[in-house]
Amino acid sequence: MGYTIAQKIIKNHLVCGEMTVGSDIGLKIDQTLTQDATGTMAYIEYEAMGIPRVKTEKSVAYIDHNTLQTGFENADDHRFIQSVCKKHGIYFSRPGNGICHQVHLERFGKPGKTLIGSDSHTPTGGGIGMLAIGAGGLDVAVAMGGGAYYITMPKMVRVNLTGKLSPWVSAKDIILAVLRVMSVKGGVGKIVEYGGEGVATLTVPERATITNMGAELGATTSVFPSDETTRKFLKAQGREEDYTELKADDDAVYDEVIEINLSELEPLAACPHSPDNVKPIKELEGKKIDQVCIGSCTNSSYLDLMRVAHILKGKKVADNVSLAIAPGSKQVFNMLALNGALGDMIAAGARILESACGPCIGMGQSPNSGGISLRTFNRNFEGRSGTADGQIYLVSPETAAVSAINGVFTDPRCLGAAAEIEMPEKFLINDNMVIDPAPVEEMDSVEILRGPNIKSYPETHPLTDSIEASCSLKVGDNITTDHIMPAGAKILPLRSNIPKISEHCFTVCDKEFPTRAKTLGKSIIVGGENYGQGSSREHAALAPLFLGVKAVLVKSFARIHKSNLINAGILPLTFVNAEDYDKIKLGDMLELPNVKDEIANGKQVTVVNKTTGDTIVADCELSDRTRNIIIAGGLLDYTKENS
Amino acid sequence: MGYTIAQKIIKNHLVCGEMTVGSDIGLKIDQTLTQDATGTMAYIEYEAMGIPRVKTEKSVAYIDHNTLQTGFENADDHRFIQSVCKKHGIYFSRPGNGICHQVHLERFGKPGKTLIGSDSHTPTGGGIGMLAIGAGGLDVAVAMGGGAYYITMPKMVRVNLTGKLSPWVSAKDIILAVLRVMSVKGGVGKIVEYGGEGVATLTVPERATITNMGAELGATTSVFPSDETTRKFLKAQGREEDYTELKADDDAVYDEVIEINLSELEPLAACPHSPDNVKPIKELEGKKIDQVCIGSCTNSSYLDLMRVAHILKGKKVADNVSLAIAPGSKQVFNMLALNGALGDMIAAGARILESACGPCIGMGQSPNSGGISLRTFNRNFEGRSGTADGQIYLVSPETAAVSAINGVFTDPRCLGAAAEIEMPEKFLINDNMVIDPAPVEEMDSVEILRGPNIKSYPETHPLTDSIEASCSLKVGDNITTDHIMPAGAKILPLRSNIPKISEHCFTVCDKEFPTRAKTLGKSIIVGGENYGQGSSREHAALAPLFLGVKAVLVKSFARIHKSNLINAGILPLTFVNAEDYDKIKLGDMLELPNVKDEIANGKQVTVVNKTTGDTIVADCELSDRTRNIIIAGGLLDYTKENS
Repeated sequence: MGYTIAQKIIKNHLVCGEMTVGSDIGLKIDQTLTQDATGTMAYIEYEAMGIPRVKTEKSVAYIDHNTLQTGFENADDHRFIQSVCKKHGIYFSRPGNGICHQVHLERFGKPGKTLIGSDSHTPTGGGIGMLAIGAGGLDVAVAMGGGAYYITMPKMVRVNLTGKLSPWVSAKDIILAVLRVMSVKGGVGKIVEYGGEGVATLTVPERATITNMGAELGATTSVFPSDETTRKFLKAQGREEDYTELKADDDAVYDEVIEINLSELEPLAACPHSPDNVKPIKELEGKKIDQVCIGSCTNSSYLDLMRVAHILKGKKVADNVSLAIAPGSKQVFNMLALNGALGDMIAAGARILESACGPCIGMGQSPNSGGISLRTFNRNFEGRSGTADGQIYLVSPETAAVSAINGVFTDPRCLGAAAEIEMPEKFLINDNMVIDPAPVEEMDSVEILRGPNIKSYPETHPLTDSIEASCSLKVGDNITTDHIMPAGAKILPLRSNIPKISEHCFTVCDKEFPTRAKTLGKSIIVGGENYGQGSSREHAALAPLFLGVKAVLVKSFARIHKSNLINAGILPLTFVNAEDYDKIKLGDMLELPNVKDEIANGKQVTVVNKTTGDTIVADCELSDRTRNIIIAGGLLDYTKENS
Repeated sequence: MGYTIAQKIIKNHLVCGEMTVGSDIGLKIDQTLTQDATGTMAYIEYEAMGIPRVKTEKSVAYIDHNTLQTGFENADDHRFIQSVCKKHGIYFSRPGNGICHQVHLERFGKPGKTLIGSDSHTPTGGGIGMLAIGAGGLDVAVAMGGGAYYITMPKMVRVNLTGKLSPWVSAKDIILAVLRVMSVKGGVGKIVEYGGEGVATLTVPERATITNMGAELGATTSVFPSDETTRKFLKAQGREEDYTELKADDDAVYDEVIEINLSELEPLAACPHSPDNVKPIKELEGKKIDQVCIGSCTNSSYLDLMRVAHILKGKKVADNVSLAIAPGSKQVFNMLALNGALGDMIAAGARILESACGPCIGMGQSPNSGGISLRTFNRNFEGRSGTADGQIYLVSPETAAVSAINGVFTDPRCLGAAAEIEMPEKFLINDNMVIDPAPVEEMDSVEILRGPNIKSYPETHPLTDSIEASCSLKVGDNITTDHIMPAGAKILPLRSNIPKISEHCFTVCDKEFPTRAKTLGKSIIVGGENYGQGSSREHAALAPLFLGVKAVLVKSFARIHKSNLINAGILPLTFVNAEDYDKIKLGDMLELPNVKDEIANGKQVTVVNKTTGDTIVADCELSDRTRNIIIAGGLLDYTKENS
């Protein structure tokens, strides 16, 4: 039986586990990337591991999220990351050099390699045949330190592309069509592979638009074959040597096959407030719009923006529309500035923004109240634009540009004959915004620039023989990570400052918790069912770690949060008898008299309530690997011990 | 006796008063401009006046301040201003079209005309021989309605320029040299006129850099002659017909003369934290820097940025420096995008920002903690950059660019032979980002787009025969407008929303005040000496107006706040006997039994404390004009009655 593309890459990188769907597998990681919003903590974690130099083939830190710099924190964070990179062997892409996924595709990605990135749109790299997966900051830190990356072996979905896109129908319309079929949950536990004769009709940036937005399917990742088109792209980027051919075996087996006939596609839009709420532009045509934003890691390539410039040339943005354009990378920006295309955009009345994520992550260009905004981005969740009642439609650059001129939703096919825009035979190559790491012999002398907002990873300790600690908080069912560690504009800039961000821990439930936990020194949290549901943020484990929480004893855990607790070295315990929940009250003194032996040898842990005299039995379900992580005091210590 | 340039323009626009230094004079205003941060309230005020169409020769509304758009308020405000412009005969310069002063100079300013603008750097227009003055929003509203603008007849200062600038010494160094001589208070009550043989050596953008930063002298305005250079500039802008020659009479008399020999100047920097803390770059040379920002209404012209591009071409921004460049206008941006200069900047590693005020007003690009930032801007007040301990140095574009490459303060004269950059014979003219007002016959049908953050001007009433109201607040000496109406990031977006911003009125002194005043319906504030000192913000009068404050009775007033109270129709009363301050307590019921007759016929007002039975005498010093403003219920009503 043959292999799919993804299976081939997995097979080549398998460190442990078996390649059967649903099994845990460990992968060797060739490349990593971070962006700055998640990267600060990832590098704090990397530092805490104490590994002098990264062990990956290439690790790159990008600055593309916090580029508005409305306070000192952003610039401080940039400098911190820059100095960490210099010291530890990581390439640093400076603010202004562009969006991580676009730049990585242009300059660093390689077919057949594994890439994890602390950003959910890392699968963009699948456009050149990488196995590129979004991951947590600590996962990236561990991978930089040489550790494997663990996933559940996914199912394989084949999207079979036939035919050829009609003029003014574009890659964005393909992925929107896939989203219409699969929905935003349809990719969970799966890798989506593209194949069929239609693949050859698509350029690399077009393929990358599709794999990028595969994240919206919930898929583990998406991947295209690496073929002659890939070779030409890499050659035009001056790195033909990075090319290898990669395709699925003819007899590869897929769990699911989806057919997309490119010839039948028409321009589409994802309507508010979900990327799978897809309608043909035709059904929206004539509806008045307020704003158009072109850019983001989904649609900001040279090809995308040349098509936009072609449409805007000699025209004028409608009086009722604000059009903002952010080129995806310095390479794109520079080429447009030299070939006149940028001049055409400016002449038409476009507002040119710095090459960065910008409005896609709610960093500026929030539309007016209830405003209708057409965006070439990948997400249109309610409120994400920064305007609570903003109406965001996700469209292709072609639809965006022609609609900006007309002031209403417009099907770009009204433009007639297709634009004759070719991929360049040679891109403008100038990597002077990427700073190389220091040579090995100079590493030690690099000083880390730690502004007042950069604090260390919380102190960790190996699991002790016994634990004696008070119950510092008792909560009910369905506690989310937003209860544990709230987000929002006020708290987000504190992501690199665990002591400060911890002051907000659980304050939604109990304002006194942070002070109480700190006063106690060490403590245990008791909760109900489905504890830790919601966002995967690792700060919901790091803040309790900082506050001295040693164990969380609940009726049941949400999967990702349990894994974050283990990574932080906090014991995740569940009541064997749910009614024992009632046997502990806030302030009770609890003892786990023999916890280390119990964890090492089995799955049950004895908890004595010394205040009431009750004895409670708790489960602690762990794999061999996670058991060792807990005993070591968390994933960082475990990785240090094993590297 | 001959006239100075400014005296000639004043003479041609004198509506009332005498041209003797210190007298109040009223000027006919030909042109107005607003920016969006102050403009929203100015247009709310204009609307409240009920005048269908502006009576100026040209009024232009610019969007250049709140362009980051990190919430719905900015876009809502832009749309509000756009719709007001359409309806009432005002030209609307869209976001992205550039910084008000740069665009106004390029496209609208005319020698010999008067211009007031709701921005303190309006004197930029003096670079082409306008009498251009920064004013309050209500002043601009009144001028748009046809009312005169009142100033105190200033003294005349002549700055006599001789010689010629050496290569790499620039206009910025001239105004820094003037600041070194005159200091930031040296221009108060004065108009600064430039003359002498050196004038002919300076282009219009260079002259505009100098008049722009004349604001930092505290001067009423600054002005250059309109000469052959001016004619060529206007011709290159396609509007030679706007040219008129304008120069001082040979026998004009100045109150003060300052000599500046251009040949002797060297590159200078204004050091933290004042524009007059001037040192030669040479004294700073070699000092490491963190950030460079090029742009702002001071130094973002085509000429400035071509010089910057020339310096950056083929070079690379130092690893330790973040270089941001914001072109001053769409015209500049577009020309640089077409002639390759922008490509040179991007290639060198510059971060290109939207054409707007941006970092100059703390809107983004805040430097790192304690960071050293070289900026081509006009102000380096402590904290203005958004980083409390940021160290901001004001320098020329040439010094900025070469320092960005070297990573340390660098005297640009190290570059050797001067750059051969000529003023263009023809600028790229494309006004498609300026939206014309509706023709008169379509005005009525224009709908005003009023987002939820746009509220009306507070209700006003003509002065009543008597006033009976409680004392709602009693404060001590030296109350600032920051006590009355705090600013800051939280409160600034509420400038167009008086009901909302009023909830913060005086809360620094008394959290209960807004609620108490609203509950009382009408009330009187009692205070000590120097009441209303500090910033000139009109919201320190509008919020009390909204909260029902009828009179403010204090020991003494700061000048501008008193004038704002009069404009808002709030009685400004001072104790004839300061010790009467002790005869009123919070909550006392006060009666002014005959206030309207007393105001109409004299300056003394009787105040009866009905709670204690005391009778107090207060002064209300008013000119005939301000007396009528108070009787009418404020400047808006007065203007309506008299238009």
